[in-house]
Amino acid sequence: MAIGDIVLGANQYGKAECRLVRVDRDSPVHRITDLTVTAQLRGDFTACHTDGDNSQVVATDTQKNTLYAFAREHGVRTPEHFLMTYGAHFVEGFDWVSGGRWEAETSTWDRISVDGAPHDHSFVRRGQETRTTVVQKDGDATWIVSGLKDCVVLKSTGSEFHGFPRDRYTTLAEVDDRVMATSVTAWWRYAPQTQAELEELDFDALHDGIRAELLAAFADLHSLALQQTLFAMGRRVLERYGVVAEVRLSCPNKHHFLVDLEPFGLDNPGEVFYAADRPYGLIQATITREGQAEVPQAWATVPAFA
Amino acid sequence: MAIGDIVLGANQYGKAECRLVRVDRDSPVHRITDLTVTAQLRGDFTACHTDGDNSQVVATDTQKNTLYAFAREHGVRTPEHFLMTYGAHFVEGFDWVSGGRWEAETSTWDRISVDGAPHDHSFVRRGQETRTTVVQKDGDATWIVSGLKDCVVLKSTGSEFHGFPRDRYTTLAEVDDRVMATSVTAWWRYAPQTQAELEELDFDALHDGIRAELLAAFADLHSLALQQTLFAMGRRVLERYGVVAEVRLSCPNKHHFLVDLEPFGLDNPGEVFYAADRPYGLIQATITREGQAEVPQAWATVPAFA
Amino acid sequence: MAIGDIVLGANQYGKAECRLVRVDRDSPVHRITDLTVTAQLRGDFTACHTDGDNSQVVATDTQKNTLYAFAREHGVRTPEHFLMTYGAHFVEGFDWVSGGRWEAETSTWDRISVDGAPHDHSFVRRGQETRTTVVQKDGDATWIVSGLKDCVVLKSTGSEFHGFPRDRYTTLAEVDDRVMATSVTAWWRYAPQTQAELEELDFDALHDGIRAELLAAFADLHSLALQQTLFAMGRRVLERYGVVAEVRLSCPNKHHFLVDLEPFGLDNPGEVFYAADRPYGLIQATITREGQAEVPQAWATVPAFA
Amino acid sequence: MAIGDIVLGANQYGKAECRLVRVDRDSPVHRITDLTVTAQLRGDFTACHTDGDNSQVVATDTQKNTLYAFAREHGVRTPEHFLMTYGAHFVEGFDWVSGGRWEAETSTWDRISVDGAPHDHSFVRRGQETRTTVVQKDGDATWIVSGLKDCVVLKSTGSEFHGFPRDRYTTLAEVDDRVMATSVTAWWRYAPQTQAELEELDFDALHDGIRAELLAAFADLHSLALQQTLFAMGRRVLERYGVVAEVRLSCPNKHHFLVDLEPFGLDNPGEVFYAADRPYGLIQATITREGQAEVPQAWATVPAFA
Repeated sequence: MAIGDIVLGANQYGKAECRLVRVDRDSPVHRITDLTVTAQLRGDFTACHTDGDNSQVVATDTQKNTLYAFAREHGVRTPEHFLMTYGAHFVEGFDWVSGGRWEAETSTWDRISVDGAPHDHSFVRRGQETRTTVVQKDGDATWIVSGLKDCVVLKSTGSEFHGFPRDRYTTLAEVDDRVMATSVTAWWRYAPQTQAELEELDFDALHDGIRAELLAAFADLHSLALQQTLFAMGRRVLERYGVVAEVRLSCPNKHHFLVDLEPFGLDNPGEVFYAADRPYGLIQATITREGQAEVPQAWATVPAFA
Repeated sequence: MAIGDIVLGANQYGKAECRLVRVDRDSPVHRITDLTVTAQLRGDFTACHTDGDNSQVVATDTQKNTLYAFAREHGVRTPEHFLMTYGAHFVEGFDWVSGGRWEAETSTWDRISVDGAPHDHSFVRRGQETRTTVVQKDGDATWIVSGLKDCVVLKSTGSEFHGFPRDRYTTLAEVDDRVMATSVTAWWRYAPQTQAELEELDFDALHDGIRAELLAAFADLHSLALQQTLFAMGRRVLERYGVVAEVRLSCPNKHHFLVDLEPFGLDNPGEVFYAADRPYGLIQATITREGQAEVPQAWATVPAFA
Repeated sequence: MAIGDIVLGANQYGKAECRLVRVDRDSPVHRITDLTVTAQLRGDFTACHTDGDNSQVVATDTQKNTLYAFAREHGVRTPEHFLMTYGAHFVEGFDWVSGGRWEAETSTWDRISVDGAPHDHSFVRRGQETRTTVVQKDGDATWIVSGLKDCVVLKSTGSEFHGFPRDRYTTLAEVDDRVMATSVTAWWRYAPQTQAELEELDFDALHDGIRAELLAAFADLHSLALQQTLFAMGRRVLERYGVVAEVRLSCPNKHHFLVDLEPFGLDNPGEVFYAADRPYGLIQATITREGQAEVPQAWATVPAFA
Repeated sequence: MAIGDIVLGANQYGKAECRLVRVDRDSPVHRITDLTVTAQLRGDFTACHTDGDNSQVVATDTQKNTLYAFAREHGVRTPEHFLMTYGAHFVEGFDWVSGGRWEAETSTWDRISVDGAPHDHSFVRRGQETRTTVVQKDGDATWIVSGLKDCVVLKSTGSEFHGFPRDRYTTLAEVDDRVMATSVTAWWRYAPQTQAELEELDFDALHDGIRAELLAAFADLHSLALQQTLFAMGRRVLERYGVVAEVRLSCPNKHHFLVDLEPFGLDNPGEVFYAADRPYGLIQATITREGQAEVPQAWATVPAFA
């Protein structure tokens, strides 16, 4: 085409937010898996965009059907394994599909306790925290970025903030003891870049272990800035999990303002706080390993910095 | 006034959704309380409505200030105790305030575990489930309706639905094994109707105990209808807690549809489900004690049936 | 049953949030109707709750099917007419159904303008404001409470607030010019109480006219308190629409705080505001006609004061 | 540092979702501007992350104060102009700030009509559709990507979908007339890459014009696939606005399923639809000009493909 002609650039499409609940009934002690899956194919879909020619458009409805069928045929060992198997079906099965992006949000269920014993087939949702997984494929390469979101944490002491520059517009007081709270969105990239290598990983154990390290780092650090806490969280994961290549964290500073009770003749020694909604500080950082190659394809469309 | 004159009817006003976080630092092992409080005063506010005369309007900003000051002066023993103390301040302190409504949503925080030990001052939000409390006062009477919401539960078996009438518009198949899931909103009214009697109650223990019974009843009943489950949940609470006068439950039937995999040559023996959003069944029921007087004032504005 | 036996109290059930879009294609200039309907039946459903006997449980799935079938068979003249027809089907068709509650939220679509002309069959959603309707029936009686919600309005001047009582906890300054903003939830009860009389009303014209009066009253009143504005809004509707028996309004005071720019050497003559989320004032009032009977059945479960 | 040492990668921070409402009171006919601004600085903040050294951390509170002060000092000509002025303050004022990202969501208000005349100082929110702007700076370069979101559109005819490949998992029927609905998220990049050139643009007129073309293209195209509609929308903007370098669109396919009324003895000639929530198709495409350089910095962190 001529320079300046209007053309199709990057594009992708698929079925979003398929709610899939799988019950493993191999024994009377059922196990449930609860995923919300978003599928996106990439490849040669130009004719559809320019001419409405659907001959290469695997219908989003077909993508959805395949998802449910694969849950029956292959089970869901972990979200990561399941998405790799599911995604490979399209990349291998359709010539013009060169890659894609498959995301899952996993909800966790605990067993209901009855008279102190866990029930066989009754469950209660653990909470709003969600385990996240993005598998991306391009030809022979596969990348996995897993994470968690809506993990709300708070320290009631062990946090300071001072020493920042003061200019004409600065009014914030320095504090040497404050409440620090955030809702952690974390993403970590697994180092292997082929499906064969990635399939060897024990993603459930990795998720639980990494989550525990993130929380422990949040708790352990006497923090001088939320940035310092993020770096400590990421560093701790990288130190203890060699299979993790880099970590991204996006953390709102959920401000808890000490209420000024002086007008009412009262002191307030770090006891009564007003938790604000908006605005909020927003801190986002990548913690990575010196000298390793950047892998932008793994992070494309991962909303870590939005 | 003349018949047909336009007049003020029922009204109330106050400050809504005050976010209050209180840190108890009596020992290095901190305790945090997290409430969202909505205050509403009732009484003689006619002149404000008809003439903009604010001489009897306790400003909503003053209501908010009082809340934070009371959190310092009185602490927060339980949400129920705190709201009674807070509400009494207005009813007793202003001649023209005859009563009101004070609501709290309480979020729960767990301690972060570091190397297996609970941390002194670092916490993680347990989840989206919320403990709720509505205190209403009118003159010398006080009513408390406590509850919980966003408690999401699921049974992977032990639920049937059949025997319903079939008419021209009925297409639903009968099933003898299905997934049953709901998000429980429960409200229970404590029987005492004076502040003095209510203050004797151990509301934290009651909340935990009642919640456990609701969940256990959900788990235990082999259910023929979600209505039957609701009744069993309420009955179990009333049987075990004489101090509870009645229970209201509002439960969406969060449909989990068995996916038809036959077109793909697969069976689906209760394994793969599609969790739907809307529409959903909505089941609402009161479970009460025969012969006791109705207490509509306690339930006014409690959104159990909305 | 014996005094103190545990029994079923008030209850209702049905299918909630059925999304119904109807296209009138009588001419090439299409018309679309967009309703979200929640159905709730009342009657004798005791055996289902106590014994799981579903022989009188019109399945919520059947209620949903009936909705879509009625949209085809009867069309949707107005949400009010449609819900009356739909509700009557159950009350008249099933002996044990004594009444119910049927609610619709109606979204409005405008035609897309192409080269200045309205398009025949392409539409854009007008906004988040929703028209609401609750039809309730009990035996031969029918009540309709219609309204609107999420109608966000703001006055940049013409609002004062002063003269309120000052106590130990009062810090709010008096102001003689402020921004006043709210999100109006309004409900109005139509006076007739039988379906035959109600069917005579032109509900679309009533909705548009009443909405216009509510907004005009908000704009016209030089306000000394949000309460005064609510009363003026309700009074204006009652003065101009004899068919409306009473009006209920629930309005958050969406605070717009004048930002203090003095620390930066700047004045702020009513120009720059911070719009806060929470907490907010919440003002709720009924405006009614002197001497008329109360009709609590019409308002039951209408969330005007929640 | 050594290869494999743990280091800080890409990072940014700032104050998010500052709600700013500005009233222009130059005449009695007020004008209001309603922005929600998120600021993010980039530069050398390593010492803060690694050591808690805040000496280069312009506090997010200071960023917020500056925002409100700038709204007073400079006014808000357009969101784009305002964000450029605001962002330049940090890049030019602090040596270690090399760039950043400033985003605004703009809400639109219409005048309330009273007796047919627009009111001077009373407004009603137009709807949920939001105008969006992301300004990014890196040294001397400035990029602007503007857009809109939550623009919900629907065609009641003029849309087909057939000719897609059929495999083992395909069950979707082909249709030659369907309802097509989506919620448009659009982003367009303005071609100039310096603040001086960008400041010459009339962003308000551009927004209104581009929005009108997007809607007109949606309406005009007889569509064979949502992908084709996206491409037509982007192409139309690029054809008519030379100043726009590329367009990105993210559009859910908000499925409206024709309800099968045959079981009830009824036909359904394109009249009664069920509007589904999840899952939904999700179509995302870039429409660009052949041969022009890619500008990834302009698109970094713009959530077009999330």
